[in-house]
Amino acid sequence: MKSMKKILIVSAHPEPRSLNAALTTFAVNHLREAGHEVRLSDLYAMKWKPTVDADDYPDHHDPARRLHVMADSEQATLEGRLAPDITAEQEKIRWSDAVVFQFPMWWFGPPAILKGWIDRVFTSGFAYGPEVPPPYGEGSLGDGRRALLSVTLGARETSFSDRGIHGRLTDVLHPLQHGLFWFTGMAPLDPFAVYDANELPEDRFEAARQTYARRLDTLFTAEPIPYRSLTGGDYDHDMRLLPERERPGTAGLDLHVLNPGIDTPHC
Amino acid sequence: MKSMKKILIVSAHPEPRSLNAALTTFAVNHLREAGHEVRLSDLYAMKWKPTVDADDYPDHHDPARRLHVMADSEQATLEGRLAPDITAEQEKIRWSDAVVFQFPMWWFGPPAILKGWIDRVFTSGFAYGPEVPPPYGEGSLGDGRRALLSVTLGARETSFSDRGIHGRLTDVLHPLQHGLFWFTGMAPLDPFAVYDANELPEDRFEAARQTYARRLDTLFTAEPIPYRSLTGGDYDHDMRLLPERERPGTAGLDLHVLNPGIDTPHC
Repeated sequence: MKSMKKILIVSAHPEPRSLNAALTTFAVNHLREAGHEVRLSDLYAMKWKPTVDADDYPDHHDPARRLHVMADSEQATLEGRLAPDITAEQEKIRWSDAVVFQFPMWWFGPPAILKGWIDRVFTSGFAYGPEVPPPYGEGSLGDGRRALLSVTLGARETSFSDRGIHGRLTDVLHPLQHGLFWFTGMAPLDPFAVYDANELPEDRFEAARQTYARRLDTLFTAEPIPYRSLTGGDYDHDMRLLPERERPGTAGLDLHVLNPGIDTPHC
Repeated sequence: MKSMKKILIVSAHPEPRSLNAALTTFAVNHLREAGHEVRLSDLYAMKWKPTVDADDYPDHHDPARRLHVMADSEQATLEGRLAPDITAEQEKIRWSDAVVFQFPMWWFGPPAILKGWIDRVFTSGFAYGPEVPPPYGEGSLGDGRRALLSVTLGARETSFSDRGIHGRLTDVLHPLQHGLFWFTGMAPLDPFAVYDANELPEDRFEAARQTYARRLDTLFTAEPIPYRSLTGGDYDHDMRLLPERERPGTAGLDLHVLNPGIDTPHC
């Protein structure tokens, strides 16, 4: 018997009849049919405010005073005085056992409305800290919370392959996978990607749905990406990877993955 | 005698008394004193709308019709029917000989308001295309236009070094440097970065200004990052780097830089 889990899906596309919206609806239904509880933050439908500004700290901000984004957002978080739209999203994340982001890749990153959800919601005092150094694997949002990126891309798959000109998808998504999820303690999974997504014929859409279903079915059992922990003994006090921790020939962002290569479950 | 150039600075910080605002003002003044013409897009002051939606194509969008972001933005671009705030920014880019982005790194990327400037302004038909494949080095915004990222980071420099846990700054900025600037034909320079920027004492701020001045003085003479061109013979028809083009031991995103290592001006 599978246990019921709680999943937050955050979606970011302006068109309710888009492929992204269809994948969101598919995921909501598929997870609910499996017995899970699902909440959805449809950012365009919510008219989510993307910009960090002084209105995010309403009881706190004195217009004559200089706004320090980091310090002011931390203080407002710790004192429970963030804008209500932010605290509502923080509550959803705290509630969740897994977070799924559904978005089209625009200029090699999330749409601005989703970047603004990250900028405003993941405050110090909520997503990490307030103490330093950054947690990486042991953050406030840990406790086994899973994180899955589900992205659509106009480009062909080879162009995001290991030698593809756009860069490996893993490297392009590193700011979210490692910089956001792993930084805050979540367990990021391999992303789910639909390529050639500008014109997707029905048979390829059906294949994508089936693949996505399998990914959703293993949301809580798949092996997360084995990023290195900051406190696991691999880094020095300046947060640099110690010499000779990596397998010979490893370079680039793979340095921060434990044993990338043939002998790990992930690779 | 130096020739006068045209520079567009795009800045993204909510606080006019912030370090980012100070660096923006410094750059505007320094470049003007050197005889250049400078225009500034201060996105917070402009109350820039970050979200792509149907309002971006005002004469064109039928609410009953499904919005196809890529196709509709391209058509509106080619027919001159984009929203006026978008065309005003496109005109500034076309006018410029160099583009400078000034922003604080939030979650390993630009603030949402700047991401939304990119999402909305860099349409197909303006920044690339409408033909495929993607240009990379020969795009619509080429002709030697320089591109410089000027970023502030709360973290210490070692944590963004080659073995730093956050990933090498070059890799973290790859979506902008290679995915945006190089993709559209601009010549990206090494980024200018101020670390430990949450609390910057006056002497370090003065040192940062001096370093930044030198970077601005060489905006048109510094060697751009020597990314590979898509049509230069290094990639196959599936946009993968051909075998053995790279120096042995090169991996990760460095694959897409010509001869990374000791014998290039950049490295």
